[in-house]
Amino acid sequence: MPTTTWNRHHILSLADFTTAEYDTVLQTAASFQEVLSRRTKKVPTLQGQVVANLFFEPSTRTRSSFEIAAKRLSADTLNFAAATSSMTKGETILDTAKTYLAMGTDIMVVRHREAGVPNAIAAEMDRLGVRVSVLNAGDGQHEHPSQALLDLFTICTLIDPDHPRLELLKGKKIAIVGDVLHSRVARSNIWSLIASGAEVHLAAPPTLLPKLFAEFILESGVRSQDFVISSSPSFPTPHSPNQQLFLHWQLEPALQNADFVMTLRLQKERMTAHLLPSLREYHQLFGITRTKLQLCKPNVKILHPGPVNRGVEISSELMDDPEFSLIQSQVTSGVAIRMALLYLLGSGKA
Amino acid sequence: MPTTTWNRHHILSLADFTTAEYDTVLQTAASFQEVLSRRTKKVPTLQGQVVANLFFEPSTRTRSSFEIAAKRLSADTLNFAAATSSMTKGETILDTAKTYLAMGTDIMVVRHREAGVPNAIAAEMDRLGVRVSVLNAGDGQHEHPSQALLDLFTICTLIDPDHPRLELLKGKKIAIVGDVLHSRVARSNIWSLIASGAEVHLAAPPTLLPKLFAEFILESGVRSQDFVISSSPSFPTPHSPNQQLFLHWQLEPALQNADFVMTLRLQKERMTAHLLPSLREYHQLFGITRTKLQLCKPNVKILHPGPVNRGVEISSELMDDPEFSLIQSQVTSGVAIRMALLYLLGSGKA
Amino acid sequence: MPTTTWNRHHILSLADFTTAEYDTVLQTAASFQEVLSRRTKKVPTLQGQVVANLFFEPSTRTRSSFEIAAKRLSADTLNFAAATSSMTKGETILDTAKTYLAMGTDIMVVRHREAGVPNAIAAEMDRLGVRVSVLNAGDGQHEHPSQALLDLFTICTLIDPDHPRLELLKGKKIAIVGDVLHSRVARSNIWSLIASGAEVHLAAPPTLLPKLFAEFILESGVRSQDFVISSSPSFPTPHSPNQQLFLHWQLEPALQNADFVMTLRLQKERMTAHLLPSLREYHQLFGITRTKLQLCKPNVKILHPGPVNRGVEISSELMDDPEFSLIQSQVTSGVAIRMALLYLLGSGKA
Repeated sequence: MPTTTWNRHHILSLADFTTAEYDTVLQTAASFQEVLSRRTKKVPTLQGQVVANLFFEPSTRTRSSFEIAAKRLSADTLNFAAATSSMTKGETILDTAKTYLAMGTDIMVVRHREAGVPNAIAAEMDRLGVRVSVLNAGDGQHEHPSQALLDLFTICTLIDPDHPRLELLKGKKIAIVGDVLHSRVARSNIWSLIASGAEVHLAAPPTLLPKLFAEFILESGVRSQDFVISSSPSFPTPHSPNQQLFLHWQLEPALQNADFVMTLRLQKERMTAHLLPSLREYHQLFGITRTKLQLCKPNVKILHPGPVNRGVEISSELMDDPEFSLIQSQVTSGVAIRMALLYLLGSGKA
Repeated sequence: MPTTTWNRHHILSLADFTTAEYDTVLQTAASFQEVLSRRTKKVPTLQGQVVANLFFEPSTRTRSSFEIAAKRLSADTLNFAAATSSMTKGETILDTAKTYLAMGTDIMVVRHREAGVPNAIAAEMDRLGVRVSVLNAGDGQHEHPSQALLDLFTICTLIDPDHPRLELLKGKKIAIVGDVLHSRVARSNIWSLIASGAEVHLAAPPTLLPKLFAEFILESGVRSQDFVISSSPSFPTPHSPNQQLFLHWQLEPALQNADFVMTLRLQKERMTAHLLPSLREYHQLFGITRTKLQLCKPNVKILHPGPVNRGVEISSELMDDPEFSLIQSQVTSGVAIRMALLYLLGSGKA
Repeated sequence: MPTTTWNRHHILSLADFTTAEYDTVLQTAASFQEVLSRRTKKVPTLQGQVVANLFFEPSTRTRSSFEIAAKRLSADTLNFAAATSSMTKGETILDTAKTYLAMGTDIMVVRHREAGVPNAIAAEMDRLGVRVSVLNAGDGQHEHPSQALLDLFTICTLIDPDHPRLELLKGKKIAIVGDVLHSRVARSNIWSLIASGAEVHLAAPPTLLPKLFAEFILESGVRSQDFVISSSPSFPTPHSPNQQLFLHWQLEPALQNADFVMTLRLQKERMTAHLLPSLREYHQLFGITRTKLQLCKPNVKILHPGPVNRGVEISSELMDDPEFSLIQSQVTSGVAIRMALLYLLGSGKA
C-alpha cells in the first residue's frame, strides 16, 4: 500500500478532491488490483470492521461490487435494502443510519434517490463526534464518486498499468455522451477529468444538456476559474486558451479526435417525460457505432457505467468488441477502487 | 466469559427465567461489550457454526442486530425472509425449520407474526432429539426476550457498567408507556423487571390496557404470587405491601418519581382499528415531552425499542437528547446481548 | 479428498456424466459429509474464491444450500436475486453474468426459469476464454443436476455409507412418480439412474407423461442405445432384455417391488392449466400412502425434492416417518453434494 497520508473522513463528492488524493486512490487501487490477481484474493486489512451497505435505492450491481470489495478486505458486511426495511414503518433516514452506527458500523456505503442524503448522514455522524465514515454510492442526480474514480482508474491503468496517476490524462480529449443532465456519473466524472487537465466534451440533445447546466457547473465548481465552457457552433461561448469543458448539441464535434468516449446510461423514463422522441432516434443521433467511431483517434476506447441498453447508447457488437470496449474492465476496476476507498477510510480507524 | 453453567437450550420467553440466568446473560454481555470496544471486534467462539435467521415477519433492524452479533462470534449466517421464500409454495413452517435443521443449522433465530411459532419449532426440534437451539426474536404479541434483555442490560450497565446484575433494579420505579396490550416487548419486559424487584407502572389509554390484561398477566405469570396489580384511582385494586405491578389509564401517576420510562412503539394500524382517536391526541396524553418528564426523578432516562415515530411516543428533541435518551445505547446493547445469547446457546454444542 | 482427476469445467447436465465422474462426486461428498460431523464444520479449501448465486428464479431452499456449502468451504458468497436486480433495467442475462465475471466471481451457480440459460452463460464464458465455472442450479424443465446427485448420494450412502458409488444401484427398481413432464428433477434423475444400471419406472397421469416424452428422452439421450422404453399395458412398446426405462399411466406397476420411490413436487399451476382434475383426485391416484407402499419392497424408502405439498404427493404422516422418508437426509446430502461440486469445480482454479 502507498504510504501517503489520507485525511478525508467521508467520500461524498469529487468536487474538492486534490491531485494528491486522486493519486493516492489510484495507487492504492493498483496495489489491490495486484492482490486480485493472486491465488487468494483476500487481505486481512479490515478484519473485525463492519461495512453497512445502506441502499435506500436498490442496486444489485453497485451493492455487489462494494460487498465483494469489503469481503476481500475481510470486513463483515451488512446489507440494508429499503424495500424490506423498517423505513416502511416511518423511521427517518437519519434514525436508520444512527441505528447502524449504534450496532457498530465502521463504514456506511449510502445510496439514495435524493441528492444530499449521504452528506446529511455524514454531517450527523460528525455532529455526534463518532468516527464512522460515509461513502456516497450514488445520490440522486448529484454524484457517484466511486464510479468516476473507477472510470479514471480504468483509463489511467490502460495508459500506465503500474503507475496510474491523474497527470496521465493531461491533454487527452474525452467525450461524455448522453443524458448529462440527469447523470450523477457525469457530474462526478466532470470533476475528476477537469482536475486531470483533460479536455472534456459533453454531447447530448438540448433537452438533456441545457445551457443552464453549464452555468450550474461553473457556479458550483470549486475550480471554476480553471476552465471555460463550450465551443460548439450551437453555443455562443467563445473559445479561450485554458478552456477545458465543452458542450455540444451534436455528437460529431465531441467525437472528433477523442481519446476516450464515456457513454451514459439512458433512463427509459426520460422518454415518457417527453425529453426524447424515441430510443431509435436517440441511437441514430447519439448512439455510438463503428462508423461514428471513425471520427475519434484510431485507438479510442469506450466506457459505460452499466447496465447498458444494447443498441441504444452503444451498438451491440461494438459493446462486445474488446478492441474498443472498456466496459468489463470498468467492472473489475470497480472492485479494486472500492477496496481502495474502504481501505483508505477504514485503515485509519482500525 | 463468566464460568457460570448454563442449561437452557432454547430462549423463548422470560416468564420462567431465574435470577442466575439473568445475571449470567448480563455478565456475558458485559464481556462482549468489552470485545466490541477492541480494535478487532471479533472472537472465534462460534466458528464453523451456522446461525439461521428465520424471519417469517420481516425486520431489518432486529435481523441486522442478530446478524452482526453472529458474525462477531465468527459464525456463518443464513438469512431466510418469508417474502422471497418457498413459503409461498405452500410449505409449512415446521417443514421450513426442519429443512434448515437438515442443512446443518446450529441456532435458529425465529420471528413470526403469530405468537407461539418459536415454541412450536423448539418443541419439534426437541421431539426429533436434535441439539438445535431456538431463539425467539419476536412472536406475535407474545414475547421478545432479547429486546427485554437488552433493555435490562442498558439500564443495569448505566448503574454499574462493570457488574450489571438484576438486583441493581430492586426498588427502582419503571414506567412502561404505550400500546401495552399489543406489545411483545412490554410482556417480556414485565417478566424481567418484576424478577428484578423493580416497581413496574404500566400506563396507556383503556383501549390499550384493558383490566383483563392485568388478570391475564397474573394468571400466566409463574410468579403471580409475588406481585399484586394496580393502584391508580381508575383501578379498584387495593394497594398491598409486596405490590410490584401497577396499571394506570393516565400517564402522570406512572411518571411520578420514575427512574426509567420505557416507551413502546405505537403501530399506526391501531388507529384504523378505532383503538385510538389520533396520533396527535395520543401524543398529547401519552407522548413523553420535556414538560411531562419533570414529574420523574431528575436523572430519569427514556427507552424505546425503535423504530420511533418521532413526535408521537416521544417528542423529537427529547429523543435526540443524550442526557435523557438511552435509545442509541439500547441498539448497541442489543448486539452485546445477542452475542451473549448466541454464545450461551452455541458454546455448549460446539 | 479423493485424488481422482476431474476435468469437467461446468456442471450443466447429467446426460453425459461418466461413471468415474459420478463416483468422484459421490466419494468427495462422503468426505465432506464427514467434515460436517466434526466440531468445526469448515475447511479452508476455497478461501479467497467467490461463489455467486445468480438466481434469476427465486429459491430460498436451494440458494441456502449452495450458500452454506460455499461458506463451509470458506468461499465468499454473493447473492443475486432477480427481483431486486438491474434486470428490471433491461440488462441481458449474459451481461449480468459478465458483470459478475468481471467482479472476480470464480463459480456461478445459476438458476433460471428458462431451459438452457446456464448453458448459454457457460458457452459465453468459454468463448471469452475465462476460467469461471457454471453450475446449473435448475433451468426451466431441463435439468437440476445437483438435486439428482444428492438423491443419488442419499440412496448410495444408505446402502454403503463409507463407499457410495454408482454400481450400488445396479438392478434396483426405482419409481419416479408425479409431474414428470414438467420436472427438471426427473430429467436429471433419469440420466443418473439409467447410468447406474437401475430399473427406472416413471408413473404419472397421461397429461403429465405423454408418450412423446419417452421418445424425446430416447432422442436426446446420449446413451439411447443402452435402454428401451416402457412396459405398462397402457403403452404398446414391447419388453426387451436390456430395458431400463419404463413408463406407466398408473401408479401400481411402478410401485410393485420398488426399492425406492422418488416423488416429484406438484406445481399447483398445473391445475389451472387443466392438466389435472383436482389435488384430491391426484392424491387418490398418485399420492404415496402407507397402503400403496405395501406394493413395494418392505424396506422401501421415499424421496422428495421439497418443498412437499403435504397430503398431495405423500400422505402427511408418511412424510414424517423416519422408517420410510429420506426427505431430511436429502437436504443434508444436498449440502455435502454441493460442497463436493464446488470443490471439484473450484480446486482446479485456486
